[in-house]
Amino acid sequence: MAKIVVIGGNAAGLTAASRARRLDPRLEITVLEKGPYISYSTCGIPYYVAGDVSAEQLLSFSPARLLSERNIEARINVEIEEVLPSRKRVFGRRIDTGERVSEQFDRLLIATGVKPRTSQIPGTGLGNVFSMISLEDAVRFRTVLGHSRKIAIVGGGYVGLEMAESLRRVGKQVTIFERQNQVMPSMDADMARIVEYELNRHGVGVRISSPVEALVGNDDHVTGIKAKGALGVEPSDAVLLDTGVRPNTDLAETAGIRTGPTGAIAVNEYMETNVPGIFAAGNCAEAFCLLRGRPILHHIGTVAAKQGRVAGENLAGRRSKFAGTVGTTILRVFDLAVGRTGLSLAEASAERIPTVSARIEALDHAAYYPDTKKIWIKLIVDRESRKLIGAQSAGYGDVSKRIDVAATAIMTSMTVENLSQLDLAYTPPYGSLWDPLIVAAQAVLRKL
Amino acid sequence: MAKIVVIGGNAAGLTAASRARRLDPRLEITVLEKGPYISYSTCGIPYYVAGDVSAEQLLSFSPARLLSERNIEARINVEIEEVLPSRKRVFGRRIDTGERVSEQFDRLLIATGVKPRTSQIPGTGLGNVFSMISLEDAVRFRTVLGHSRKIAIVGGGYVGLEMAESLRRVGKQVTIFERQNQVMPSMDADMARIVEYELNRHGVGVRISSPVEALVGNDDHVTGIKAKGALGVEPSDAVLLDTGVRPNTDLAETAGIRTGPTGAIAVNEYMETNVPGIFAAGNCAEAFCLLRGRPILHHIGTVAAKQGRVAGENLAGRRSKFAGTVGTTILRVFDLAVGRTGLSLAEASAERIPTVSARIEALDHAAYYPDTKKIWIKLIVDRESRKLIGAQSAGYGDVSKRIDVAATAIMTSMTVENLSQLDLAYTPPYGSLWDPLIVAAQAVLRKL
Repeated sequence: MAKIVVIGGNAAGLTAASRARRLDPRLEITVLEKGPYISYSTCGIPYYVAGDVSAEQLLSFSPARLLSERNIEARINVEIEEVLPSRKRVFGRRIDTGERVSEQFDRLLIATGVKPRTSQIPGTGLGNVFSMISLEDAVRFRTVLGHSRKIAIVGGGYVGLEMAESLRRVGKQVTIFERQNQVMPSMDADMARIVEYELNRHGVGVRISSPVEALVGNDDHVTGIKAKGALGVEPSDAVLLDTGVRPNTDLAETAGIRTGPTGAIAVNEYMETNVPGIFAAGNCAEAFCLLRGRPILHHIGTVAAKQGRVAGENLAGRRSKFAGTVGTTILRVFDLAVGRTGLSLAEASAERIPTVSARIEALDHAAYYPDTKKIWIKLIVDRESRKLIGAQSAGYGDVSKRIDVAATAIMTSMTVENLSQLDLAYTPPYGSLWDPLIVAAQAVLRKL
Repeated sequence: MAKIVVIGGNAAGLTAASRARRLDPRLEITVLEKGPYISYSTCGIPYYVAGDVSAEQLLSFSPARLLSERNIEARINVEIEEVLPSRKRVFGRRIDTGERVSEQFDRLLIATGVKPRTSQIPGTGLGNVFSMISLEDAVRFRTVLGHSRKIAIVGGGYVGLEMAESLRRVGKQVTIFERQNQVMPSMDADMARIVEYELNRHGVGVRISSPVEALVGNDDHVTGIKAKGALGVEPSDAVLLDTGVRPNTDLAETAGIRTGPTGAIAVNEYMETNVPGIFAAGNCAEAFCLLRGRPILHHIGTVAAKQGRVAGENLAGRRSKFAGTVGTTILRVFDLAVGRTGLSLAEASAERIPTVSARIEALDHAAYYPDTKKIWIKLIVDRESRKLIGAQSAGYGDVSKRIDVAATAIMTSMTVENLSQLDLAYTPPYGSLWDPLIVAAQAVLRKL
């Protein structure tokens, strides 16, 4: 019987293993995971740090349950160090015991995720300085949380903002240092301002245009952070780094597996690498962007899981295709929901797409109905094709609905005219006679 | 300057008048409304009955404000009795004074809405028996509400269910009598069962397969309701009729304006009738169904408003087209949201479309995140084209999001394969790594 080996036991890897198993009960499937956990929700880490959920709740499967329920063997603490395509074999060792490990495969999936981008900031090796990429990072961070009063976050991306909320909610003094002149660089600045306002409103310090020059302290303990232009060192008991990640491709590269211009493992629509029988999925692999018409780096669990599912079907012998991504993301920052899909104005400009855009402020549902909440929607339309190519929304009401509808419209190449006449659901408690998305489309049409 | 006359001062009529005004400040625009109110939210009536909102809150514009802010003259209590296309003139009278009214027009919009379908049930003329079509109906009903303890609702459609919730919330004993073997006949029976359960859970009596044979009582006061198969007469202090409406086409028909096979006024995509320069929009007009490829009756505010907007643009001399409807609706029944879009199984069967469908039960957002709620989603797919043609959802979480995404997918002829890979937004508080809509699409795919 065919032997499947999966390197990496999270979103992409475990989804693939489970999907392959469902399609073919006879396959022999082994998952090799470097860390001590498999199958956990990376997106849930901020809520674990805030104490909303336990680490156990974030774990869907233990290796024992995975074996008994899905007949998939998962080995944790196993780091694969070499893939030998010619011999169809992987080699590595158990991190805890040092024991050598080797597995033969017929088909292989590389789902090794990301690793922190090497930081140029001096002092990131000090004590109490944490990345927040894996559950292990979060578990370690939780051990010092009780002794930390002032926490600095370097980087105002998704992880940085979610951690800021979590830490503020457990009573910490939190300051975000962001190199660029806005948080959430994947959004346009006018939308990011709404997020910065919400952070300030909840007592989070936001320092934009503040590249960090150094972390100071000793091996045992960071004591402060020095940002460019700041008068002095800002005291900090702990520092979280959200300074970016890069695809973990070391294993692939040494095996002669091609990476693309993005630096991630190049895959075709079947999630197969240039080496037949070796697949890659999730954050270590490229994701095809439907708007740019080429692969991009896009580190998000939903895409990793979808790629994993496609890879799993192909590991089991199907020929399934990944449909591609439009870069849909959402996060919560205190009471505010913030989402985006498609291209931002800056991204559209980089693609030399001529755009027209409009931003509206609207009420989440009928003005007269109790508890209506403000939301903002910005739409970006290709001036020539008149197709929707981007949407951003922030607000205190149902932002996720508008982002999901916009994502669907973008994936189907909908024009702004058709968007302005979408037959959306309305009843006063859940919407408006004219949905804010439609009002935003009308606002774009007035400019076309 | 061109003179625009609009008959009917609510969703379609006032939207049209306002849109025409915005496009052309020079037009002379007169709105003639039979009732005492213009510009109110019909969809808000149940929440007025429950006391959540006042009647004033449901009114967007008084005639005085409409005149001062939009330079539109609205005359209330004016019933138009005749349209004379040859003379481009309408004739009628003021209901309160009997004074004759006549207006000349260059372009006319008929937006006369609906009227109750003539009920075959004996006794609907008794005291304390109410339709619930206009705000006047609701205002009159509110005057007897204090003296009514037991209220019967005839008909388990949208209005009946929303009123049942409202009346229960103000402490009434409520029983719904539905002729068919389920409430909400526009949904499939398996989904309607969820709604019936919610009604029962909140103490509303639900009698399905219970056609009403007679209302009993005297001219002053209904005293009871006799349903087929019931052992006796059920005492009732008041009765609400949700026994259907029909397009109010009297005026159009006497003027030689053509109605279609649905019984509503036939219009082309410009919302123009067979008489050039005379338009119709809203619930008195047909609505083009994108799935059936022909006009249908579809009485809903969102479609009325969209048709009104298109008509208003054309009244102002543009050539705008109505994009059509896919029958998207939603309502709230106590804690449950219930929505549908596209065709139900019965409707698809009537169109001889071969279908495959699946229903799933899922959690609204990540299972481990606090406050996750159950929702059910049913998808209906054309077995041959593999396109999504219908979606129904009910549940205690964000149903409206899934219905809106499904409506967008239906309007863009999306296949179930593409639906299963939609790039939707995810963060634990707002969604699942695999959105329930995607899980439902996967369930359909397993059957294809």
